[in-house]
Amino acid sequence: MKFCSHCGQRVSLRVPPGDHLPRFVCDACGTIHYQNPRLIAGCVPEWEGKILICRRAIEPRLGYWTIPAGFMENGETLMAAAAREAVEEALAAVDVGSLLAIVHVTHAHQVHVMFRARLTRPQFGVGSESLEVMLVEERDIPWRDIAFPSVDFALRRYFEDRAAGHERVHITEVERLKR
Amino acid sequence: MKFCSHCGQRVSLRVPPGDHLPRFVCDACGTIHYQNPRLIAGCVPEWEGKILICRRAIEPRLGYWTIPAGFMENGETLMAAAAREAVEEALAAVDVGSLLAIVHVTHAHQVHVMFRARLTRPQFGVGSESLEVMLVEERDIPWRDIAFPSVDFALRRYFEDRAAGHERVHITEVERLKR
Repeated sequence: MKFCSHCGQRVSLRVPPGDHLPRFVCDACGTIHYQNPRLIAGCVPEWEGKILICRRAIEPRLGYWTIPAGFMENGETLMAAAAREAVEEALAAVDVGSLLAIVHVTHAHQVHVMFRARLTRPQFGVGSESLEVMLVEERDIPWRDIAFPSVDFALRRYFEDRAAGHERVHITEVERLKR
Repeated sequence: MKFCSHCGQRVSLRVPPGDHLPRFVCDACGTIHYQNPRLIAGCVPEWEGKILICRRAIEPRLGYWTIPAGFMENGETLMAAAAREAVEEALAAVDVGSLLAIVHVTHAHQVHVMFRARLTRPQFGVGSESLEVMLVEERDIPWRDIAFPSVDFALRRYFEDRAAGHERVHITEVERLKR
């Protein structure tokens, strides 16, 4: 951030009075521009034991596999965002179920929130942000080609809980992805 | 948002190619400025059955009661944010426990995430954003003077779960506050 989105003048990075962290402050109009983590919402859609996964058509991690997930929009709930992403990325209608995972991706200033979900019918397709979409058994998950640590975490906890017969909430923080 | 924070030129509100929602787009440098919900993290700090609550010294809802909560910062987890707010608003050290509530405050573009917590010692004070801080029994909670629906929701679920002997995650969406 270099300019004030309110008045168009230059901002400077400094600690405002009464605050404890540096912020982008407009010296012209006084606006303080706070920057906060962004929410990503996603889900693990299941149909008769199989899981719907998508191969990414966009960067980052083009060509790698993910579950439907993306930035939450203003005015929607996390569950609505997760369902919308399933439509956009996999042309799939889902019923969003219980909360599965909260993954803090602190270096990226993101919080990923993943839910369990069920396809409402066995129909899906390849959304504009996907190269390929498929329903797979647990044994066929391409673990070495998963796009993001948060997706790997959510899928592993999903299968563990399913095998154990419970639905828990798992919270973690992931390290920067090593490539 | 009126100006591009990247180049300082005027932005316009329009649907970018391939998108489905209007965004603030800079016609000069092409930057798309996405706006997403902000995360508020808080906790219900308990000490020997009593709950720590704070009377707000700042707007909105100055003079009303809340639990320690505030905007999550980049680089921290939700639990770290909740613990930091307890320090800032109530000069209280807490151990953050299980996830209690996720409240979508959709009209305000906020998601409030509340945890159970325990004071690490029976010491607290009045932080700069508080007028008064106190440890109260459930029967002494000032229910009619709670600052926000999300705080009311979190406290009610907290006491219900405590009475029932379990710790569940409660997810809801609140309506605009009527005054």
